[in-house]
Amino acid sequence: MTVFFSVSMSLDGFIAPSSPDELMGRQWRELQAWVFPLRFFRENLKFGEGGEEGRDNDIARATFERTGASVMGRRMFDAGEHAWPEDAPFHTPVFVVTHEKRDPWERAGGTTFHFVNDGIESALEQARAAAGPRDVRIAGGGETILRFLDAGLVDEFSIALSPVLFGAGVRLFDGIDASRIALSAAGSESSPRVTHLTYTVRRR
Amino acid sequence: MTVFFSVSMSLDGFIAPSSPDELMGRQWRELQAWVFPLRFFRENLKFGEGGEEGRDNDIARATFERTGASVMGRRMFDAGEHAWPEDAPFHTPVFVVTHEKRDPWERAGGTTFHFVNDGIESALEQARAAAGPRDVRIAGGGETILRFLDAGLVDEFSIALSPVLFGAGVRLFDGIDASRIALSAAGSESSPRVTHLTYTVRRR
Repeated sequence: MTVFFSVSMSLDGFIAPSSPDELMGRQWRELQAWVFPLRFFRENLKFGEGGEEGRDNDIARATFERTGASVMGRRMFDAGEHAWPEDAPFHTPVFVVTHEKRDPWERAGGTTFHFVNDGIESALEQARAAAGPRDVRIAGGGETILRFLDAGLVDEFSIALSPVLFGAGVRLFDGIDASRIALSAAGSESSPRVTHLTYTVRRR
Repeated sequence: MTVFFSVSMSLDGFIAPSSPDELMGRQWRELQAWVFPLRFFRENLKFGEGGEEGRDNDIARATFERTGASVMGRRMFDAGEHAWPEDAPFHTPVFVVTHEKRDPWERAGGTTFHFVNDGIESALEQARAAAGPRDVRIAGGGETILRFLDAGLVDEFSIALSPVLFGAGVRLFDGIDASRIALSAAGSESSPRVTHLTYTVRRR
Protein backbone atom coordinates (compact mmCIF):
# COMPACT_ATOMS: atom_id res chain seq x y z
CA MET A 1 0.00 0.00 0.00
CA THR A 2 1.46 3.27 -1.19
CA VAL A 3 0.97 6.81 0.13
CA PHE A 4 1.15 9.24 -2.78
CA PHE A 5 0.12 12.61 -4.06
CA SER A 6 -0.57 13.74 -7.60
CA VAL A 7 -0.77 17.38 -8.70
CA SER A 8 -0.50 19.58 -11.76
CA MET A 9 2.47 21.96 -11.50
CA SER A 10 3.64 24.87 -13.64
CA LEU A 11 7.15 24.70 -15.05
CA ASP A 12 8.20 27.27 -12.43
CA GLY A 13 6.87 25.15 -9.57
CA PHE A 14 3.42 26.53 -8.75
CA ILE A 15 0.32 24.43 -8.11
CA ALA A 16 -2.20 27.20 -7.41
CA PRO A 17 -2.64 30.90 -8.04
CA SER A 18 -2.12 33.41 -5.25
CA SER A 19 -5.28 35.29 -6.20
CA PRO A 20 -8.32 34.64 -8.37
CA ASP A 21 -7.93 37.67 -10.64
CA GLU A 22 -8.25 37.50 -14.40
CA LEU A 23 -4.63 36.70 -15.19
CA MET A 24 -4.57 33.94 -12.62
CA GLY A 25 -7.77 32.57 -14.07
CA ARG A 26 -5.98 32.21 -17.37
CA GLN A 27 -2.94 30.62 -15.74
CA TRP A 28 -5.06 28.19 -13.75
CA ARG A 29 -6.88 27.11 -16.91
CA GLU A 30 -3.56 26.57 -18.65
CA LEU A 31 -2.22 24.57 -15.70
CA GLN A 32 -5.24 22.26 -15.82
CA ALA A 33 -5.72 22.39 -19.59
CA TRP A 34 -4.71 18.74 -19.96
CA VAL A 35 -7.46 17.61 -17.56
CA PHE A 36 -10.59 19.39 -18.81
CA PRO A 37 -10.95 17.59 -22.16
CA LEU A 38 -10.62 14.11 -20.67
CA ARG A 39 -13.40 11.57 -20.82
CA PHE A 40 -12.58 10.54 -17.25
CA PHE A 41 -12.86 14.14 -15.99
CA ARG A 42 -16.27 14.57 -17.63
CA GLU A 43 -17.51 11.24 -16.29
CA ASN A 44 -16.26 11.85 -12.77
CA LEU A 45 -17.93 15.24 -12.51
CA LYS A 46 -21.06 14.03 -14.30
CA PHE A 47 -20.58 16.48 -17.17
CA GLY A 48 -22.02 13.87 -19.49
CA GLU A 49 -20.76 11.72 -22.31
CA GLY A 50 -17.82 12.38 -24.59
CA GLY A 51 -14.34 13.63 -23.90
CA GLU A 52 -10.94 12.49 -25.04
CA GLU A 53 -9.42 9.07 -24.50
CA GLY A 54 -5.72 8.29 -24.76
CA ARG A 55 -2.78 8.24 -22.35
CA ASP A 56 -3.67 11.41 -20.41
CA ASN A 57 -7.10 9.94 -19.81
CA ASP A 58 -5.68 6.55 -18.81
CA ILE A 59 -3.30 8.20 -16.35
CA ALA A 60 -6.03 10.34 -14.76
CA ARG A 61 -8.30 7.30 -14.47
CA ALA A 62 -5.53 5.12 -13.01
CA THR A 63 -4.78 7.79 -10.38
CA PHE A 64 -8.42 7.74 -9.37
CA GLU A 65 -8.78 3.96 -9.42
CA ARG A 66 -5.71 3.26 -7.30
CA THR A 67 -7.03 5.54 -4.55
CA GLY A 68 -8.84 3.78 -1.70
CA ALA A 69 -8.95 6.80 0.61
CA SER A 70 -7.76 10.41 0.59
CA VAL A 71 -6.34 12.77 3.17
CA MET A 72 -7.04 16.47 2.84
CA GLY A 73 -6.18 19.69 4.64
CA ARG A 74 -8.78 22.00 6.12
CA ARG A 75 -8.25 24.72 3.52
CA MET A 76 -8.84 22.40 0.60
CA PHE A 77 -11.96 21.08 2.30
CA ASP A 78 -13.25 24.57 3.08
CA ALA A 79 -12.70 25.65 -0.52
CA GLY A 80 -14.35 22.54 -1.87
CA GLU A 81 -17.22 22.14 0.58
CA HIS A 82 -19.53 24.43 -1.37
CA ALA A 83 -17.85 23.98 -4.76
CA TRP A 84 -17.95 20.19 -5.16
CA PRO A 85 -21.16 18.80 -6.57
CA GLU A 86 -23.56 16.88 -4.28
CA ASP A 87 -21.95 13.79 -5.78
CA ALA A 88 -18.41 14.77 -4.71
CA PRO A 89 -15.64 13.56 -7.03
CA PHE A 90 -13.77 11.33 -4.55
CA HIS A 91 -16.10 8.31 -4.24
CA THR A 92 -14.07 7.02 -1.28
CA PRO A 93 -13.57 8.00 2.38
CA VAL A 94 -11.77 11.33 2.76
CA PHE A 95 -10.01 12.22 6.02
CA VAL A 96 -9.90 15.97 6.66
CA VAL A 97 -7.19 17.20 9.04
CA THR A 98 -8.90 19.97 10.97
CA HIS A 99 -9.56 21.41 14.41
CA GLU A 100 -13.27 21.41 13.67
CA LYS A 101 -15.21 18.71 15.53
CA ARG A 102 -17.86 17.43 13.20
CA ASP A 103 -19.72 14.21 12.45
CA PRO A 104 -18.86 12.34 9.26
CA TRP A 105 -20.46 13.95 6.21
CA GLU A 106 -21.78 11.42 3.74
CA ARG A 107 -22.31 12.50 0.14
CA ALA A 108 -23.96 10.79 -2.77
CA GLY A 109 -21.76 8.45 -4.78
CA GLY A 110 -19.65 7.04 -1.97
CA THR A 111 -17.70 10.03 -0.68
CA THR A 112 -17.71 10.35 3.11
CA PHE A 113 -15.70 13.12 4.77
CA HIS A 114 -14.31 12.21 8.19
CA PHE A 115 -12.96 15.02 10.36
CA VAL A 116 -9.73 14.16 12.16
CA ASN A 117 -8.67 16.37 15.06
CA ASP A 118 -5.49 14.66 16.21
CA GLY A 119 -3.00 15.32 13.45
CA ILE A 120 -1.69 14.07 10.13
CA GLU A 121 -0.39 10.71 11.36
CA SER A 122 -3.77 9.81 12.80
CA ALA A 123 -5.47 10.88 9.57
CA LEU A 124 -3.07 8.72 7.58
CA GLU A 125 -3.60 5.73 9.87
CA GLN A 126 -7.37 5.99 9.45
CA ALA A 127 -7.00 6.42 5.69
CA ARG A 128 -4.77 3.34 5.48
CA ALA A 129 -7.36 1.30 7.35
CA ALA A 130 -10.14 2.56 5.09
CA ALA A 131 -8.25 2.13 1.81
CA GLY A 132 -8.23 -1.66 1.91
CA PRO A 133 -5.86 -2.99 -0.74
CA ARG A 134 -5.75 0.33 -2.56
CA ASP A 135 -3.46 3.34 -2.04
CA VAL A 136 -3.85 6.48 0.06
CA ARG A 137 -3.75 9.80 -1.76
CA ILE A 138 -2.71 13.00 -0.05
CA ALA A 139 -5.19 15.11 -1.98
CA GLY A 140 -3.94 18.54 -0.95
CA GLY A 141 -3.65 21.40 -0.64
CA GLY A 142 -0.01 22.28 -0.98
CA GLU A 143 0.59 22.96 2.70
CA THR A 144 -0.79 19.56 3.67
CA ILE A 145 1.24 17.78 1.01
CA LEU A 146 4.36 19.50 2.35
CA ARG A 147 3.58 18.46 5.94
CA PHE A 148 3.32 14.83 4.86
CA LEU A 149 6.51 15.06 2.79
CA ASP A 150 8.45 16.69 5.61
CA ALA A 151 7.21 14.03 8.03
CA GLY A 152 8.54 11.28 5.74
CA LEU A 153 5.06 9.86 5.17
CA VAL A 154 4.97 10.01 1.35
CA ASP A 155 6.21 7.01 -0.65
CA GLU A 156 5.71 8.34 -4.15
CA PHE A 157 4.33 11.28 -6.07
CA SER A 158 3.30 12.28 -9.55
CA ILE A 159 3.54 15.70 -11.13
CA ALA A 160 1.74 16.67 -14.30
CA LEU A 161 4.13 19.38 -15.46
CA SER A 162 2.23 21.88 -17.61
CA PRO A 163 3.89 24.17 -20.17
CA VAL A 164 2.96 27.38 -18.35
CA LEU A 165 4.79 29.88 -16.14
CA PHE A 166 2.94 31.38 -13.18
CA GLY A 167 5.54 33.81 -11.82
CA ALA A 168 3.64 33.91 -8.51
CA GLY A 169 1.27 31.78 -6.49
CA VAL A 170 1.48 28.73 -4.23
CA ARG A 171 4.70 26.78 -4.75
CA LEU A 172 4.48 23.03 -4.22
CA PHE A 173 7.85 22.67 -2.53
CA ASP A 174 8.09 26.07 -0.85
CA GLY A 175 9.80 25.73 2.54
CA ILE A 176 10.52 22.01 2.19
CA ASP A 177 13.32 20.51 4.28
CA ALA A 178 15.22 19.37 1.19
CA SER A 179 18.10 17.90 3.17
CA ARG A 180 15.91 15.03 4.42
CA ILE A 181 14.44 13.94 1.10
CA ALA A 182 16.00 11.86 -1.67
CA LEU A 183 14.10 11.29 -4.89
CA SER A 184 14.39 8.68 -7.59
CA ALA A 185 12.81 9.23 -10.96
CA ALA A 186 10.34 6.39 -11.43
CA GLY A 187 8.92 7.24 -14.81
CA SER A 188 7.99 9.99 -17.21
CA GLU A 189 5.69 10.24 -20.16
CA SER A 190 4.64 13.17 -22.29
CA SER A 191 1.53 13.97 -24.20
CA PRO A 192 1.15 17.08 -26.37
CA ARG A 193 -0.36 18.90 -23.34
CA VAL A 194 1.64 17.80 -20.32
CA THR A 195 4.58 15.77 -19.00
CA HIS A 196 3.75 13.16 -16.37
CA LEU A 197 6.63 12.67 -13.92
CA THR A 198 6.71 10.09 -11.14
CA TYR A 199 9.19 9.99 -8.27
CA THR A 200 9.73 7.68 -5.32
CA VAL A 201 10.74 9.26 -2.02
CA ARG A 202 13.33 8.08 0.51
CA ARG A 203 14.44 9.64 3.77
CA ARG A 204 18.08 10.62 4.01
CA MET B 1 18.81 30.42 -36.50
CA THR B 2 17.49 29.81 -33.02
CA VAL B 3 18.27 31.60 -29.76
CA PHE B 4 18.09 29.09 -26.93
CA PHE B 5 19.25 28.25 -23.46
CA SER B 6 19.81 24.89 -21.84
CA VAL B 7 20.19 24.32 -18.11
CA SER B 8 19.90 21.65 -15.45
CA MET B 9 17.11 22.44 -12.99
CA SER B 10 16.02 20.83 -9.73
CA LEU B 11 12.44 19.63 -9.49
CA ASP B 12 11.69 22.65 -7.29
CA GLY B 13 13.03 25.08 -9.89
CA PHE B 14 16.60 25.87 -8.83
CA ILE B 15 19.61 26.01 -11.18
CA ALA B 16 22.32 26.94 -8.68
CA PRO B 17 22.96 26.84 -4.96
CA SER B 18 22.75 30.01 -2.87
CA SER B 19 25.96 29.15 -1.06
CA PRO B 20 28.84 26.73 -1.50
CA ASP B 21 28.48 24.98 1.84
CA GLU B 22 28.59 21.21 2.22
CA LEU B 23 24.90 20.55 1.76
CA MET B 24 24.81 22.64 -1.36
CA GLY B 25 27.81 20.81 -2.66
CA ARG B 26 25.83 17.59 -2.44
CA GLN B 27 22.79 19.16 -4.09
CA TRP B 28 24.87 20.64 -6.89
CA ARG B 29 26.44 17.25 -7.59
CA GLU B 30 23.00 15.67 -7.69
CA LEU B 31 21.71 18.37 -10.03
CA GLN B 32 24.56 17.73 -12.46
CA ALA B 33 24.82 14.00 -11.80
CA TRP B 34 23.56 13.17 -15.28
CA VAL B 35 26.39 15.18 -16.91
CA PHE B 36 29.53 14.01 -15.15
CA PRO B 37 29.59 10.40 -16.43
CA LEU B 38 29.11 11.41 -20.07
CA ARG B 39 31.73 10.71 -22.71
CA PHE B 40 31.06 14.14 -24.21
CA PHE B 41 31.62 15.89 -20.87
CA ARG B 42 34.94 14.12 -20.38
CA GLU B 43 36.04 14.87 -23.93
CA ASN B 44 35.04 18.52 -23.79
CA LEU B 45 36.92 19.17 -20.56
CA LYS B 46 39.86 17.02 -21.64
CA PHE B 47 39.39 14.57 -18.78
CA GLY B 48 40.53 11.81 -21.08
CA GLU B 49 38.97 8.81 -22.71
CA GLY B 50 35.97 6.84 -21.57
CA GLY B 51 32.61 7.90 -20.26
CA GLU B 52 29.09 6.83 -21.04
CA GLU B 53 27.40 6.97 -24.40
CA GLY B 54 23.65 6.82 -24.94
CA ARG B 55 20.85 9.35 -25.18
CA ASP B 56 22.06 11.69 -22.39
CA ASN B 57 25.40 11.86 -24.12
CA ASP B 58 23.82 12.44 -27.54
CA ILE B 59 21.69 15.27 -26.15
CA ALA B 60 24.64 16.96 -24.44
CA ARG B 61 26.71 16.67 -27.60
CA ALA B 62 23.90 17.97 -29.83
CA THR B 63 23.47 21.00 -27.55
CA PHE B 64 27.16 21.76 -27.93
CA GLU B 65 27.25 21.15 -31.68
CA ARG B 66 24.26 23.34 -32.53
CA THR B 67 25.90 26.29 -30.76
CA GLY B 68 27.75 28.72 -33.01
CA ALA B 69 28.19 31.44 -30.39
CA SER B 70 27.22 32.01 -26.75
CA VAL B 71 26.10 35.01 -24.73
CA MET B 72 27.01 35.17 -21.06
CA GLY B 73 26.45 37.48 -18.11
CA ARG B 74 29.25 39.11 -16.19
CA ARG B 75 28.75 36.98 -13.09
CA MET B 76 29.06 33.73 -14.98
CA PHE B 77 32.16 35.01 -16.70
CA ASP B 78 33.71 36.22 -13.45
CA ALA B 79 33.03 32.86 -11.81
CA GLY B 80 34.42 30.96 -14.78
CA GLU B 81 37.39 33.13 -15.68
CA HIS B 82 39.71 31.39 -13.27
CA ALA B 83 37.84 28.09 -13.11
CA TRP B 84 37.67 27.12 -16.77
CA PRO B 85 40.70 25.32 -18.12
CA GLU B 86 43.07 27.13 -20.47
CA ASP B 87 41.21 25.32 -23.21
CA ALA B 88 37.82 26.75 -22.21
CA PRO B 89 34.86 24.45 -22.92
CA PHE B 90 32.97 26.69 -25.40
CA HIS B 91 35.12 26.41 -28.54
CA THR B 92 33.19 29.28 -30.16
CA PRO B 93 32.94 33.06 -29.72
CA VAL B 94 31.39 34.03 -26.37
CA PHE B 95 29.88 37.50 -25.89
CA VAL B 96 30.03 38.68 -22.29
CA VAL B 97 27.54 41.40 -21.28
CA THR B 98 29.54 43.61 -18.93
CA HIS B 99 30.48 47.17 -18.04
CA GLU B 100 34.13 46.19 -18.16
CA LYS B 101 36.00 47.52 -21.19
CA ARG B 102 38.43 44.87 -22.27
CA ASP B 103 40.02 43.52 -25.43
CA PRO B 104 38.88 40.16 -26.74
CA TRP B 105 40.40 37.29 -24.79
CA GLU B 106 41.42 34.40 -26.97
CA ARG B 107 41.81 30.97 -25.42
CA ALA B 108 43.20 27.73 -26.74
CA GLY B 109 40.75 25.55 -28.63
CA GLY B 110 38.70 28.24 -30.35
CA THR B 111 37.02 30.07 -27.48
CA THR B 112 37.27 33.87 -27.73
CA PHE B 113 35.55 36.03 -25.14
CA HIS B 114 34.27 39.38 -26.46
CA PHE B 115 33.24 42.01 -23.94
CA VAL B 116 30.06 43.88 -24.88
CA ASN B 117 29.31 47.15 -23.10
CA ASP B 118 26.08 48.23 -24.77
CA GLY B 119 23.50 45.75 -23.58
CA ILE B 120 21.93 42.39 -24.24
CA GLU B 121 20.49 43.18 -27.67
CA SER B 122 23.88 44.26 -28.95
CA ALA B 123 25.47 41.11 -27.51
CA LEU B 124 22.83 38.99 -29.21
CA GLU B 125 23.29 40.77 -32.53
CA GLN B 126 27.04 40.16 -32.43
CA ALA B 127 26.49 36.54 -31.44
CA ARG B 128 24.05 36.02 -34.33
CA ALA B 129 26.61 37.40 -36.75
CA ALA B 130 29.34 35.17 -35.31
CA ALA B 131 27.24 32.01 -35.15
CA GLY B 132 26.99 31.54 -38.89
CA PRO B 133 24.39 28.90 -39.68
CA ARG B 134 24.42 27.59 -36.13
CA ASP B 135 22.34 28.68 -33.11
CA VAL B 136 23.04 31.17 -30.34
CA ARG B 137 23.06 29.86 -26.79
CA ILE B 138 22.31 32.10 -23.82
CA ALA B 139 24.81 30.34 -21.59
CA GLY B 140 23.82 31.95 -18.28
CA GLY B 141 23.74 32.73 -15.47
CA GLY B 142 20.15 32.71 -14.37
CA GLU B 143 19.80 36.47 -14.23
CA THR B 144 21.03 36.86 -17.80
CA ILE B 145 18.73 34.10 -19.05
CA LEU B 146 15.81 35.86 -17.38
CA ARG B 147 16.71 39.21 -18.98
CA PHE B 148 16.69 37.59 -22.42
CA LEU B 149 13.42 35.79 -21.70
CA ASP B 150 11.74 38.94 -20.43
CA ALA B 151 12.95 40.86 -23.49
CA GLY B 152 11.33 38.29 -25.78
CA LEU B 153 14.67 37.29 -27.27
CA VAL B 154 14.56 33.54 -26.56
CA ASP B 155 13.02 31.20 -29.16
CA GLU B 156 13.41 27.91 -27.36
CA PHE B 157 14.86 26.35 -24.25
CA SER B 158 15.76 22.99 -22.78
CA ILE B 159 15.67 21.97 -19.16
CA ALA B 160 17.35 18.86 -17.83
CA LEU B 161 15.07 18.25 -14.85
CA SER B 162 17.01 16.39 -12.17
CA PRO B 163 15.37 14.30 -9.42
CA VAL B 164 16.60 16.51 -6.59
CA LEU B 165 15.06 19.15 -4.34
CA PHE B 166 17.15 22.19 -3.40
CA GLY B 167 14.79 24.05 -1.08
CA ALA B 168 16.88 27.22 -1.57
CA GLY B 169 19.20 28.74 -4.12
CA VAL B 170 18.91 30.54 -7.45
CA ARG B 171 15.56 29.95 -9.11
CA LEU B 172 15.58 29.91 -12.91
CA PHE B 173 12.28 31.74 -13.34
CA ASP B 174 12.36 33.93 -10.22
CA GLY B 175 10.80 37.30 -10.97
CA ILE B 176 9.83 36.48 -14.55
CA ASP B 177 7.06 38.50 -16.19
CA ALA B 178 4.94 35.39 -16.75
CA SER B 179 2.08 37.31 -18.34
CA ARG B 180 4.13 37.98 -21.49
CA ILE B 181 5.35 34.46 -22.13
CA ALA B 182 3.52 31.53 -23.69
CA LEU B 183 5.21 28.14 -23.86
CA SER B 184 4.60 25.11 -26.03
CA ALA B 185 6.03 21.76 -25.08
CA ALA B 186 8.28 20.73 -27.94
CA GLY B 187 9.57 17.42 -26.68
CA SER B 188 10.51 15.41 -23.64
CA GLU B 189 12.65 12.39 -23.08
CA SER B 190 13.77 10.64 -19.93
CA SER B 191 16.82 8.68 -19.01
CA PRO B 192 17.28 6.98 -15.65
CA ARG B 193 19.07 10.12 -14.37
CA VAL B 194 17.18 13.08 -15.80
CA THR B 195 14.20 14.26 -17.85
CA HIS B 196 15.01 16.42 -20.88
CA LEU B 197 12.24 18.95 -21.56
CA THR B 198 12.15 21.31 -24.53
CA TYR B 199 9.82 24.29 -24.93
CA THR B 200 9.30 26.90 -27.60
CA VAL B 201 8.59 30.45 -26.48
CA ARG B 202 6.06 32.94 -27.88
CA ARG B 203 5.24 36.46 -26.77
CA ARG B 204 1.66 37.03 -25.64
